[in-house]
Amino acid sequence: MKIMLIGFGVVGQGVAGLLGARPQLDIEIVGVATGTRGSLYLVDGLSPHQLLTAIQSGHLDHYPDAPGLRRNLDPLQLIRDSKADVMVECSPSNFQTGQPAFDYCRAAFASGKHVVLANKGPVALRYANLMGFAGDQYQVRYEATVMAGTPCFALGEKYFVRENGCPISDIRGILNGTTNYILTQMGDGMNYAEALAQAQQLGYAETDPTADVEGWDAAGKAMILSNVFFGNQLRRNEMSVQGITGITQADIASAHAAGERWKLIVQVTPAGASVQPMRLPISDPLAGVSGATNAITFKTPLLGDVTLIGAGAGRAETAFGVLADLLDIQRTLGR
Amino acid sequence: MKIMLIGFGVVGQGVAGLLGARPQLDIEIVGVATGTRGSLYLVDGLSPHQLLTAIQSGHLDHYPDAPGLRRNLDPLQLIRDSKADVMVECSPSNFQTGQPAFDYCRAAFASGKHVVLANKGPVALRYANLMGFAGDQYQVRYEATVMAGTPCFALGEKYFVRENGCPISDIRGILNGTTNYILTQMGDGMNYAEALAQAQQLGYAETDPTADVEGWDAAGKAMILSNVFFGNQLRRNEMSVQGITGITQADIASAHAAGERWKLIVQVTPAGASVQPMRLPISDPLAGVSGATNAITFKTPLLGDVTLIGAGAGRAETAFGVLADLLDIQRTLGR
Repeated sequence: MKIMLIGFGVVGQGVAGLLGARPQLDIEIVGVATGTRGSLYLVDGLSPHQLLTAIQSGHLDHYPDAPGLRRNLDPLQLIRDSKADVMVECSPSNFQTGQPAFDYCRAAFASGKHVVLANKGPVALRYANLMGFAGDQYQVRYEATVMAGTPCFALGEKYFVRENGCPISDIRGILNGTTNYILTQMGDGMNYAEALAQAQQLGYAETDPTADVEGWDAAGKAMILSNVFFGNQLRRNEMSVQGITGITQADIASAHAAGERWKLIVQVTPAGASVQPMRLPISDPLAGVSGATNAITFKTPLLGDVTLIGAGAGRAETAFGVLADLLDIQRTLGR
Repeated sequence: MKIMLIGFGVVGQGVAGLLGARPQLDIEIVGVATGTRGSLYLVDGLSPHQLLTAIQSGHLDHYPDAPGLRRNLDPLQLIRDSKADVMVECSPSNFQTGQPAFDYCRAAFASGKHVVLANKGPVALRYANLMGFAGDQYQVRYEATVMAGTPCFALGEKYFVRENGCPISDIRGILNGTTNYILTQMGDGMNYAEALAQAQQLGYAETDPTADVEGWDAAGKAMILSNVFFGNQLRRNEMSVQGITGITQADIASAHAAGERWKLIVQVTPAGASVQPMRLPISDPLAGVSGATNAITFKTPLLGDVTLIGAGAGRAETAFGVLADLLDIQRTLGR
């Protein structure tokens, strides 16, 4: 199976790393496109190791010459011209328009390719549209868009709903690692500013942490879950979204004294979604989720609550979600 | 797909209930065998509803006559003679010998049937043997043997190991609901005897609670996990097994004061397994698992710890695990 990568940042490099370590998988990278660091196409397959060496030295131009190698195609041209079976969209998410990733997906379908998204934009903002363009002919996967490689869609969508006809009535989750890390550190005595600074130092939080701490990253994931599980395309202004900036050390201490924990909780039902800090009793499986870890609870009529807890970010972790999608498509195609 | 049930207690009746509610599934019960309440065989398919009515009135003899209906075949005869695709073994588990379930499985393979086990005995005691007799030709599934229908094998064995080549290096779990219920109630102020009495009243604990409270039920599940994930057939005397009868209210209170919780923890590694009460910090996802709920943490090199929390018992919950196995076999057969 031949794949092409749109975007070659943390996730794309993680995918190359995993594939380089598992050559027996029969998944070949034939194309890579970046915004400002060049692009490459080689129908016989690019070397994951040399791709990583090139990008680590700053630009894909450093990839060694090879017969048939084409350089610096723009992404749309690369998508249209490349003989790849799957396009992996792992460029940065745009939560305003979902672009240019959405157009890349359309171009992928139009040129006969399945699509794997680590990019959250199209799945959050234009899911029905995306599935419409894919039609029955093309597969679309997006495991890494929520909880990185922790398999919330493989468990919730594929296993429960599709394979076993077990509906999901309600979803709750801790889907932003940065805020959970900050709340956990505040529980251990830090104030908000110290905890945020530490999260930034560890690479959990961006220099501008607004999207995380104001709840917008979590809201984007709520939109994805609403689309996938309930077929309900929410707009941002239809959700109540509240971050953690209003939580004080006194709030945290008062919760601890009552045997409770503050968590930034995403709630999604067929009727809508919200993001808000909530005090959970220790007996709630989500209350014990600490640090940058993520968690999701599916409420089902047959099995009751089923909770999945695991990594929500990280290079290898996110790349594993993409790889799982690729292998799932490979199985579907019977290869 | 035609199935036969060996055993028609809580689990078997749960399966009949689920199939009765979902006639679109194309899974037909053609045979049912019980120890002392009769057996039935009808190649055209038995009615789930009438099976439940008959057994609830005490004996399968109450099932109405029908052309071709055969009554009171013994289990081995029923297995050998019935035109079923799958045998479901859901009679009570025997942790001494795994019998007679193991011989029933052999007879099933010998007469061309796949096998689904809710019965833990053969999976705990003779897994390699079982898989050897199944060979490449017959499928064996056992989702309901650990955590009822909460999909610990679908997630750990199928998704991580088989489909995605992600090894599991270590497993920890809360796999006995009765003891977790008792420990949770003791945390809320009951003494051991009161908590046990309440567990018995609610149907979580048997009249003789020894297998639960001494850790032997959990040890049986440790043996199953050791077999499935590490190919290591443990004997009971090779495991350190300690129950919860030595835990006092003072122990519980002291753990609470330190922000910790006592849990009966199953640990399984490639080198062996143990069952013992442990004090876990609240930051451990297993610490927040309360009441009769079960949980399992898979340690993986790629994704770190992944924890699954859900029901570990119950009629519909266990039957759902069996149904998921049946649907998985159905997909494998391409029907």
